[in-house]
Amino acid sequence: MNDDRNVARTASVGVDLGGTNIRAAVFDDGMKILGRSEIPTEAQEGADEVISRIATCVREALDRSSVAAGEVAGIGVGAAGLTDWRTGVVVLASNLRWRNVPLKERLEQELDGLRVEVDKDTNVAALAEARLGAGSEFKHFLYVTAGTGIGGGLILDGTLYRGATGGAGDIGHVVVDPEGPLCGCGDHGCVEVFSSGAGMVNRAREMLAGGEQAASSAMTVEALTPQTIFEAAREGDAVAAPVVETAGRALGLALADYVNINNPEAIVLGGGVVRAGRAYTEPVERELRRRALPALGEIVKLVPPGLGDDVGVTGAALLLAESEIEKNGGSA
Amino acid sequence: MNDDRNVARTASVGVDLGGTNIRAAVFDDGMKILGRSEIPTEAQEGADEVISRIATCVREALDRSSVAAGEVAGIGVGAAGLTDWRTGVVVLASNLRWRNVPLKERLEQELDGLRVEVDKDTNVAALAEARLGAGSEFKHFLYVTAGTGIGGGLILDGTLYRGATGGAGDIGHVVVDPEGPLCGCGDHGCVEVFSSGAGMVNRAREMLAGGEQAASSAMTVEALTPQTIFEAAREGDAVAAPVVETAGRALGLALADYVNINNPEAIVLGGGVVRAGRAYTEPVERELRRRALPALGEIVKLVPPGLGDDVGVTGAALLLAESEIEKNGGSA
Repeated sequence: MNDDRNVARTASVGVDLGGTNIRAAVFDDGMKILGRSEIPTEAQEGADEVISRIATCVREALDRSSVAAGEVAGIGVGAAGLTDWRTGVVVLASNLRWRNVPLKERLEQELDGLRVEVDKDTNVAALAEARLGAGSEFKHFLYVTAGTGIGGGLILDGTLYRGATGGAGDIGHVVVDPEGPLCGCGDHGCVEVFSSGAGMVNRAREMLAGGEQAASSAMTVEALTPQTIFEAAREGDAVAAPVVETAGRALGLALADYVNINNPEAIVLGGGVVRAGRAYTEPVERELRRRALPALGEIVKLVPPGLGDDVGVTGAALLLAESEIEKNGGSA
Repeated sequence: MNDDRNVARTASVGVDLGGTNIRAAVFDDGMKILGRSEIPTEAQEGADEVISRIATCVREALDRSSVAAGEVAGIGVGAAGLTDWRTGVVVLASNLRWRNVPLKERLEQELDGLRVEVDKDTNVAALAEARLGAGSEFKHFLYVTAGTGIGGGLILDGTLYRGATGGAGDIGHVVVDPEGPLCGCGDHGCVEVFSSGAGMVNRAREMLAGGEQAASSAMTVEALTPQTIFEAAREGDAVAAPVVETAGRALGLALADYVNINNPEAIVLGGGVVRAGRAYTEPVERELRRRALPALGEIVKLVPPGLGDDVGVTGAALLLAESEIEKNGGSA
């Protein structure tokens, strides 16, 4: 690698590593995107192949941005799974079928020694919101994303809080019904089994299998998706409407627990399921207000994210500056 | 007041303000207790009278320790209720029948301008554990006290985390049964209605009123206390045993939610109910292990407090040094 020590390393690369796609974007020091790339993850090919594909995606984004490797301060990666940010090891990522993959170390090898920092995807998204989105208004907030699953990241006192081992913010596994349906985590009645996209599909499937009659012709066991459920719910479908109402209420209850535990100023609520609209978010807010301790619930704002689809690559790129701050012993 | 500027202000006073008693202790700069006092709170006499009694209790402790007011750096108070530590206002304390009492300001007047810092009692106890108890082993822990009620305080990254308005750590109001009994907070099925001393008495009373037959002669509606319930449970009483088992399980579930949200290294579990023994703590631990995400639950230690009955006055005295650190912009 040409490493010209006279060139300022002012660019950074953010990588969003998901179960379906890898996205990379090159940022200048004002966080403007200079170039980007996106390729399929092909998780079934195994960790070695995925790591090689991440390197390819990064090189492609650099080529398109006309930034030389020597100008790059480093690569930040947000990975879909429990990640130890101190070691850069992805501890458990079911979408990727990974367990204890030393992503930082292996990717640094692939990229000829360029510095790599790794964290879980919801943490980097929370960080992006803190620095460039909701954080201009709030110092204490929970970032929640409700999509296929439900995850979160914590901003406490203006700083990303990761907990003891990087798992803080796993709001999807707050229990809202102790005797409820089995969750992928092994527990019963986690909010994720009711309020995530996959959870809503499963709940609707159970109701149909139990003989419940749906009014909408789209509500068949085979055709069920979060989209068909939301569309049918809007028409008052007898299966879809209660599934969406229950989903919203369950998430509101989990958020009330969060409020009682961590006393935030705001909850930044995003993700594909949330964008489906008021049928979902209205019961979220109603249950949150009803369940939280009055003194803590009254002050909490429920707000949409400040950033769009680039939140993942942006937060990943911000990891580099953030870990510099931590290593220098300061706080943001 | 004689304020001799040449005398080093090396002593501090910690006050534990409870619904029943006010306790004060004078500490030297090595946190050794030099003198103490305890008087009844007499909350029914109103806030003015209670504040005057706090001042009396402080003066008595100073007299007994042979420390002059001029040698005192300040007074820390741990108050039983939601407290805004920034302003020193007790926002809501049902045991004291207080709402928005400016305790810091009023007590500084009563004590001729001595500096006063105020925080909620569970926060000061968590701080004492962090500095002199469990904190020698853990940087990230939840301090829980289960007695008449259930409260907690958060130590995150070695520092007391209070949330946006001082309410962080209200673990007693995590919902464990959404359709459960009404809680004093207005919500249903908070862990406090099952797992606190008062909650266990109410649950046993309901079972007896519902016709359930207790084997122990001490288990009458009139005689019920947490103690009679624990004693009867040890003999396998048909009312007391399930009440204690349910209490433990409910707390374990709430703690699992905490683990999934904040990923602590440890939970420091204390209070009068916990001291009643394994019949309570065994189901707490079982349910915690069963419900927490495996990767987060496996690493959590459930430990007793490192400090005894002086935890409240000790933590209150530590508030003074802690708020100096915060004002100087550092972290502990």
